[in-house]
Amino acid sequence: MGEPEAKRAKTEPEYELTYWPGIPGRGEVVRLLFEETGTPYIDVAKSKKAVDAVCAYSDLKNVGDAKNPPKFAPPVLKHGELVINQLPNILLYLAPRLGLGPSSGDGVYHLNEIALTILDGFLNEVHETHHPVGTAAYYEDQKDEAKTRSKAFREERLPKYLKYVQRVLDGERSGEGGWLYGGELTYVDLVLFQCLDGTKYAFPKTVEKLKKGGKYAGVFKLYDAVKERPNVKAYLESDRRVDYANGIWRHYPELEEDE
Amino acid sequence: MGEPEAKRAKTEPEYELTYWPGIPGRGEVVRLLFEETGTPYIDVAKSKKAVDAVCAYSDLKNVGDAKNPPKFAPPVLKHGELVINQLPNILLYLAPRLGLGPSSGDGVYHLNEIALTILDGFLNEVHETHHPVGTAAYYEDQKDEAKTRSKAFREERLPKYLKYVQRVLDGERSGEGGWLYGGELTYVDLVLFQCLDGTKYAFPKTVEKLKKGGKYAGVFKLYDAVKERPNVKAYLESDRRVDYANGIWRHYPELEEDE
Repeated sequence: MGEPEAKRAKTEPEYELTYWPGIPGRGEVVRLLFEETGTPYIDVAKSKKAVDAVCAYSDLKNVGDAKNPPKFAPPVLKHGELVINQLPNILLYLAPRLGLGPSSGDGVYHLNEIALTILDGFLNEVHETHHPVGTAAYYEDQKDEAKTRSKAFREERLPKYLKYVQRVLDGERSGEGGWLYGGELTYVDLVLFQCLDGTKYAFPKTVEKLKKGGKYAGVFKLYDAVKERPNVKAYLESDRRVDYANGIWRHYPELEEDE
Repeated sequence: MGEPEAKRAKTEPEYELTYWPGIPGRGEVVRLLFEETGTPYIDVAKSKKAVDAVCAYSDLKNVGDAKNPPKFAPPVLKHGELVINQLPNILLYLAPRLGLGPSSGDGVYHLNEIALTILDGFLNEVHETHHPVGTAAYYEDQKDEAKTRSKAFREERLPKYLKYVQRVLDGERSGEGGWLYGGELTYVDLVLFQCLDGTKYAFPKTVEKLKKGGKYAGVFKLYDAVKERPNVKAYLESDRRVDYANGIWRHYPELEEDE
């Protein structure tokens, strides 16, 4: 017979996240918001229907429903009848609801711009390093091109983005405490942690060298501070945290061999 | 002596857009929002200080000010004391203020996801076609890689994104009238127009062939409908509209030579 409707509705998580199984990827950034705040969520990637669920959203016949437009790709967040995708958009939606950002005013746009820039630098551009000439083609078929792109990423782009994050931390708007914005932890600190963690996995020697250079001390201090948050720490040590694999952040030693 | 302070303040545009001079680029999407709505704006790209203004924002010593974090790259929008960047963020901010989107509720997130997806497909991925292995390197030094990436874009990615836009139009949330969302023109229709226009400039034969195929009739009808809006039409015919050049949307005939 199951539980009475009212009780079941109350105990079921409000939020449902759909993403590819087996890789942290973009979904991981969303998970960190839930984990840091202790918010219950359904993680479809951990269920048997994960691949079907992802494919159903981006199916060429899917035109959405009466409430929601169709989706191009995961992650997809379902909250009640609302279904949204695009990582920065999901973050924008969740931040005020989870107490990780303001619900109105300048801070909404400042945080969104910081999130978008970090995602550009430490997620989108990292994906390009191993798939520079064909998103659908194998890495093995674009290794030479990947080496060229990776060199440019390691030597020009990554330092430029790290410097940007350090500039944000050095600015007045960051405030005291070492967080990126407004003196307390917000979702963009979690975005920075996950994206730098992934980049570190992909290019360990490069990131270590940049860390030792000392120019971005605030950035690495922030990374450590997020990692030590009690809920984040417990999550990272749990089996809910998926290992890196052949997703966005990949480790190919040959892509940093001249480091 | 100049005008009295009060009068001058009233006649000066509220909005100031800073972007690279000489190319439409990301700044052009912002301009279309102002032009469609007849909103006065200061276009710094048209002034002599354009390059200096762009460089000042992303200068490595710039850590923002008391109100605003520093910026990674243009476009930058200044409105009163607020200074924001990242194109999708600027659009999010302007839409409700210019009557091109709701100020709260589901529509905010639906429109933002549509804008982000169109920008991914018809702007970011187009830039990658001519600079697949090095953002800072010359196109001439990555022509072969650009050919490979362009082929993948033309054959796989572009049709997939066009299909996505058509799916949005085919969905219930699009409504009547052929606009992308909610039955009337919103900022995402302007985003689609500019991004498809740029893609058409870059890959004219490819886009023409896809148009003739008839699978994306709604998308091209929407493109034409935006182009015929009185304010947009007048703008496109004015000398305020900058010609395409060596920016994001570039035309290299060799990148579609097997069409």
